[in-house]
Amino acid sequence: MHPEQIKILLSMIQKLIRRGAAHNLQKIVNKSHAADVAAVFSFLSPKDQIFLFHLIDKTDKKAEVLSELGETEFLVIAEDMPAEEIVKIFEEMASDDVADLLQLLPDEKSKEILDLMEKEDSAEVEGLLRFEDDTAGGIMVPDFIALKEETTVADAITALQTKEKDVEMAFYLYVVDDYDHLVGVISLRQLVVARPMTKLQDIMTTNVVTVHSNMDQEEVAKVVARYNILAVPVVDDQNVLLGIVTVDDVIDIIREEATEDILRMAGAGDELVETQSVLRSTRTRLPWLFASWIGGIVAFYIIDHFQGALTKVLYLAAFIPIIMGMGGSVGTQSATIVVRGLAMGRFNVKQILPVVLKELTIGGLLGFFYGLLLGIVAQYRYDLWGLGIVVGFSVLCSMTVAATVGSCVPLILARIKVDPAVATGSFVTTSIDILSVLIYFQIATVLLHL
Amino acid sequence: MHPEQIKILLSMIQKLIRRGAAHNLQKIVNKSHAADVAAVFSFLSPKDQIFLFHLIDKTDKKAEVLSELGETEFLVIAEDMPAEEIVKIFEEMASDDVADLLQLLPDEKSKEILDLMEKEDSAEVEGLLRFEDDTAGGIMVPDFIALKEETTVADAITALQTKEKDVEMAFYLYVVDDYDHLVGVISLRQLVVARPMTKLQDIMTTNVVTVHSNMDQEEVAKVVARYNILAVPVVDDQNVLLGIVTVDDVIDIIREEATEDILRMAGAGDELVETQSVLRSTRTRLPWLFASWIGGIVAFYIIDHFQGALTKVLYLAAFIPIIMGMGGSVGTQSATIVVRGLAMGRFNVKQILPVVLKELTIGGLLGFFYGLLLGIVAQYRYDLWGLGIVVGFSVLCSMTVAATVGSCVPLILARIKVDPAVATGSFVTTSIDILSVLIYFQIATVLLHL
Repeated sequence: MHPEQIKILLSMIQKLIRRGAAHNLQKIVNKSHAADVAAVFSFLSPKDQIFLFHLIDKTDKKAEVLSELGETEFLVIAEDMPAEEIVKIFEEMASDDVADLLQLLPDEKSKEILDLMEKEDSAEVEGLLRFEDDTAGGIMVPDFIALKEETTVADAITALQTKEKDVEMAFYLYVVDDYDHLVGVISLRQLVVARPMTKLQDIMTTNVVTVHSNMDQEEVAKVVARYNILAVPVVDDQNVLLGIVTVDDVIDIIREEATEDILRMAGAGDELVETQSVLRSTRTRLPWLFASWIGGIVAFYIIDHFQGALTKVLYLAAFIPIIMGMGGSVGTQSATIVVRGLAMGRFNVKQILPVVLKELTIGGLLGFFYGLLLGIVAQYRYDLWGLGIVVGFSVLCSMTVAATVGSCVPLILARIKVDPAVATGSFVTTSIDILSVLIYFQIATVLLHL
Repeated sequence: MHPEQIKILLSMIQKLIRRGAAHNLQKIVNKSHAADVAAVFSFLSPKDQIFLFHLIDKTDKKAEVLSELGETEFLVIAEDMPAEEIVKIFEEMASDDVADLLQLLPDEKSKEILDLMEKEDSAEVEGLLRFEDDTAGGIMVPDFIALKEETTVADAITALQTKEKDVEMAFYLYVVDDYDHLVGVISLRQLVVARPMTKLQDIMTTNVVTVHSNMDQEEVAKVVARYNILAVPVVDDQNVLLGIVTVDDVIDIIREEATEDILRMAGAGDELVETQSVLRSTRTRLPWLFASWIGGIVAFYIIDHFQGALTKVLYLAAFIPIIMGMGGSVGTQSATIVVRGLAMGRFNVKQILPVVLKELTIGGLLGFFYGLLLGIVAQYRYDLWGLGIVVGFSVLCSMTVAATVGSCVPLILARIKVDPAVATGSFVTTSIDILSVLIYFQIATVLLHL
């Protein structure tokens, strides 16, 4: 459904809610795709969300909608429901989704639910909860089809028919040896076109792309993207098949990680907080601004220190914003290019020098251009000999330094295994602010003999 | 292959190139996965890239490597090869990839190649070139399997066996009526478990998620992500099936679009330019900085205008950086949250007011906190009655205004269908710089009676 159609669905549902037309609403939510119903939820009040959710007839549809909901909406629904009812819905859901949702609930409620779940299901979910949230183990589904090497194609097809339908996206069959070690993979396509009596070991691909259960989810996503595969098997140290990560989850990870990077660079937290309360948003953003504040205070003491110079040439104050602004802008450019380049795997972290040298040169060229421009304006405005040279030269220096700092910092952070996005935003901006002011007043004092 | 393994492969290849060990190199490139070979290319010199490429034995492997290469690397290889040889490789490639690569080549060479290609292939590619680059039509592959409603499962399996292997990721079969209108879809999974004599119309899903050929690729990606499907069929106005967009291409789009958004917000162009030359990078980044420059000049004239006040209370100058910095930081936070929220489809563009009101409140709360902090520091440092109140109140006002502007601008742009990421970076930062300085000096003049 296109965004416009979602809007139409939304306004239709809102109208029916206002009228209290439960019967019509019931028809609509049961006919619409679960993903569309979930998309509508975020625009409704908690009360309406609960009302609408209970109009869904089938438990498996409820499960689909629930696994598509955002955190906030899920908690609204879950807090209102007794554990027994949640368990019924969870039993229709893939175990990785159940594990994710359980982690959102208060410990007590999630324990209650695990106790109520059927042994087999809860063991699966608890197995997933063992792994770190952001690793291959934490995002994999344990529902895959693994067969022995000697199995024939015909038997494999029978196995497909008998396996319950909750195997997610089964487009590959995995082949394991007697000790569950992964030895090969076959796509459904290969299976369909092979002769019935062929053994799997004769048609399987043995060069299987795998990921270890403790690999970071971002790396897992890169592997799936690089090899254009629809699912990647997750193995342990002994190459025993534990589960698979499917491409639909990889898409969610890529979007999440991009959001995380974007927000971190802007110092706005880790995840979209627009549905959170005002106070929670404020709390998330408050500490990130502290770096800016410290930077401002240091800049303040620097200017204070150069008060003598400022007294003699008052005009100097008017150029503070432009020199800081130009340095900040070019530094942000450099930092962003490097952070994103690192995330996309375009840089080799070992080769810091060539990248930094290139940014330094670019910063210098840009600084030369804008410095010249500013110098001319300043000279024309004040006609004070030397002021044009001071501000022009300050822009040149501050932009060159900014591009260097902007590219250096994320590369160094990546090398010492700190997420470059986190520190770059606040640290780069703050240090460039300080350096720009310092460079400017230092140059002014020396060149104008103040 | 994990990043570490790629590094090992790279250093092995570099060592062998230095030694001129062509035979060993040949073994390695032919044994390694095409995606891994392509990953290595970006770290080699153009000369070595060409050398290595010609060591690949099989044409289909060459095709795989070529379609995985970055733009720069592809052009290095293509410029060195006669059109005849390129055609041979292109014939092994999916037609959407061929169309993408052709667009990178100079017009003359791409025409020459199209002329040389076999009629059927070149018609397919030219068909794709008709569509806009960034639309569903431009990214779809025309290689799909479409069968009639009355076809039996057994015949469908035969069709799968006879269709050439270059159908990309065939995990769905599409069902069309006599006029090629799309009427249903069947997954391979459904096909495998159905009885041989069943007609497709009895097992097909009729509620097919489709996209129109002129839908923007970003929307296409959202559709695939929302419905967790592996491929989405592309149709024209009459619902005639034209092609499919597969999930592996969607992953690339999501990564590209995220990169585009991140870079645009930082005013650093549209795509990663780190492989471009210094001059080209400088040219890309130069115009984006002009907004900052203008902002700085306006700020300069504002301060210049308040020179009288500045002469009386010189300390005012020292607070310029912190007041601008705090405004800029909170404005960037707000703008980023809204831009990313829009990209992720979390906001309804029609509901501008609640979002902006929320940001205004958050900006006010953050401004109150940091304003108070700064007021105390200023009062303690100068002991000039009123200065603490002036700077504290300025931080409060400037942060509130910044959060409001930062959230308003992207929402308004999205509403008038301008990409919010493009304009937000430069426009928001610049206007916040100007507003902060103006607010600060206005407050100072009034409260201190200057």
